[in-house]
Amino acid sequence: MRIEDLDTPALTIDLDILEQNIRTVQESCRKHDIPLRVHTKTHKTPAIAHMQLRAGAIGIVCQKVGEAEIMVSAGIDDILIPYNIVGKQKVERLIRLCKRATLTVACDSEITALGISELAEAEGIQVRTLIELNTGGNRCGVQSPEAALELAQKITAMPGLSFQGIMTYPSREQAKPFLDKTRSLLEEAGIPVHTISGGGTGSEAVSKAIGCTEARIGSYVFEGPTRINRNNNPPNPQTCAERMIVTVVSTPTPDRIIIDGGKKTFTNDRETPYGHIVEYPEAKISAMSVEHGHVDVSNCHHTFTVGDRLSVIPQHQGMVTNLHDEVYAVRNGVVEAIWQVGGRGKVK
Amino acid sequence: MRIEDLDTPALTIDLDILEQNIRTVQESCRKHDIPLRVHTKTHKTPAIAHMQLRAGAIGIVCQKVGEAEIMVSAGIDDILIPYNIVGKQKVERLIRLCKRATLTVACDSEITALGISELAEAEGIQVRTLIELNTGGNRCGVQSPEAALELAQKITAMPGLSFQGIMTYPSREQAKPFLDKTRSLLEEAGIPVHTISGGGTGSEAVSKAIGCTEARIGSYVFEGPTRINRNNNPPNPQTCAERMIVTVVSTPTPDRIIIDGGKKTFTNDRETPYGHIVEYPEAKISAMSVEHGHVDVSNCHHTFTVGDRLSVIPQHQGMVTNLHDEVYAVRNGVVEAIWQVGGRGKVK
Repeated sequence: MRIEDLDTPALTIDLDILEQNIRTVQESCRKHDIPLRVHTKTHKTPAIAHMQLRAGAIGIVCQKVGEAEIMVSAGIDDILIPYNIVGKQKVERLIRLCKRATLTVACDSEITALGISELAEAEGIQVRTLIELNTGGNRCGVQSPEAALELAQKITAMPGLSFQGIMTYPSREQAKPFLDKTRSLLEEAGIPVHTISGGGTGSEAVSKAIGCTEARIGSYVFEGPTRINRNNNPPNPQTCAERMIVTVVSTPTPDRIIIDGGKKTFTNDRETPYGHIVEYPEAKISAMSVEHGHVDVSNCHHTFTVGDRLSVIPQHQGMVTNLHDEVYAVRNGVVEAIWQVGGRGKVK
Repeated sequence: MRIEDLDTPALTIDLDILEQNIRTVQESCRKHDIPLRVHTKTHKTPAIAHMQLRAGAIGIVCQKVGEAEIMVSAGIDDILIPYNIVGKQKVERLIRLCKRATLTVACDSEITALGISELAEAEGIQVRTLIELNTGGNRCGVQSPEAALELAQKITAMPGLSFQGIMTYPSREQAKPFLDKTRSLLEEAGIPVHTISGGGTGSEAVSKAIGCTEARIGSYVFEGPTRINRNNNPPNPQTCAERMIVTVVSTPTPDRIIIDGGKKTFTNDRETPYGHIVEYPEAKISAMSVEHGHVDVSNCHHTFTVGDRLSVIPQHQGMVTNLHDEVYAVRNGVVEAIWQVGGRGKVK
């Protein structure tokens, strides 16, 4: 099967670029002497996670229990969920998973820890636990090294939990005093810190510099080693692995064509240009309805015909993956594999 | 099962509100003497389409062949696809569907019509065809009544196509001269116009006034009879049927809580407030990461605890449905049905 045989819109992954991205970031982590734990949020696809592990990653990251269930059932063993798992239904699922794979979870409150501890104790298992620190990301996380110590002391006293260390996001230099202080407080209190987990695409050097024992990196797999500045720059076709193949379905006026992918195909973020047309960069995606992409071709000398096919690099590569059930892995125009996006839509 | 038993995030539909919306708009169409053809883009759910048909709708609308496949396999017979079906793979699927249900498609070019005609003739069937007019929506559509006549003459001469009439979107008063002129040109040329299809939530009166034979209306089913002004007004809890049940997973600072739904749960449209918290309207969803919802509670007197559950009315009710595999139909706190969102993700 060739790329021309795919019905559209078709989400394709260029295998040469994908493999190059996996190699480049793995090599960079080796060079910086920091283990790579790949974040699967970008691809949600077990086949790609296995490629990353074969290249040398020490494990993966899933943001939701439902994603971890998919990855465990695809044979992946070492998974970090850097997310507070709250609520009996979800904790029960987490405990089941912990019996089948090496799971680690993060938490930032006694309530979250207690909820996991109670069910883990009842099942006679130990759940590996990190404390999330807010080192400036201002999302979740305890607010100070002292608060981290207090929570760590509670966790180490809880049955069913195995305290492993700390995590933060994103890794940055300003986080070092917070991390250093937390580690020394914990060690002074006799609580060993096995893991200090940092993260962010392009953060391997800084993660190492601030003392992390692993770097959680994800977006690179599709976007390339350097984070895209989504608001200002078009994606780089040399390092961006995703191409949405679309068909021109209408050429209503000389300055407008309509493609068969809209917000449901490309996400509905209206702040950015949705995507970039590889073959005709001067044709600009100007607006999207749910199922129609509006393309301004007034600066494009090509005359488009209904039925023409175009390759679009989506602007939001990770979010786009979540809209599609499968991706087509392509090399030199040939479809080498069709991969299920197993983690798609796993909101729970 | 009660709503409290659902793991979160859980996309729920309030059945009382859903039934009220279905009744209200059906009754309004009766009053305005215009048949209602419900657009299923908002719910993508066969169970809801059947409720709308039982209430009196004459048929449904699907935007993609993949959605129509789901609806036909759920026993629905009369479907309009107001979309140019282009490409051999997709036309073959359309032709297969035409053998199992009453399908009508729109087109705006000779190329689209020819692609369908060739395969329909080979299979010995007639595909019911409308011409899409651009009466100001500036998306697809022929640009003038004369262009519509020219295309209609070509279509009526093509084997395998059964010309039915014309369609436009959205219905508005300014469209009347275009529609009137097209109809009279076609009738003068001896081409009968059986169908004039208009559309848009809240457009039943104007659709009738400009001469339409049916109104395609969709968003009302979740949003209520009046279109939400997404940028300025919070949704009306009396007429909005969707509630996303979420859990507070972190209370990191006195002015911020984090809920377990982010862009992957609520869409990633950053222009609008994502959603409105029913129980505490003064708690504002201020930002979203992919899996985290950031809520500013600085103006809220309630003290939140990890594990609290909240009901959020999503701002983009139709786009949100596309992110979830199932919806929970709830009345007075009891889950009466779990519906598969069968049309979710059908981009093709």
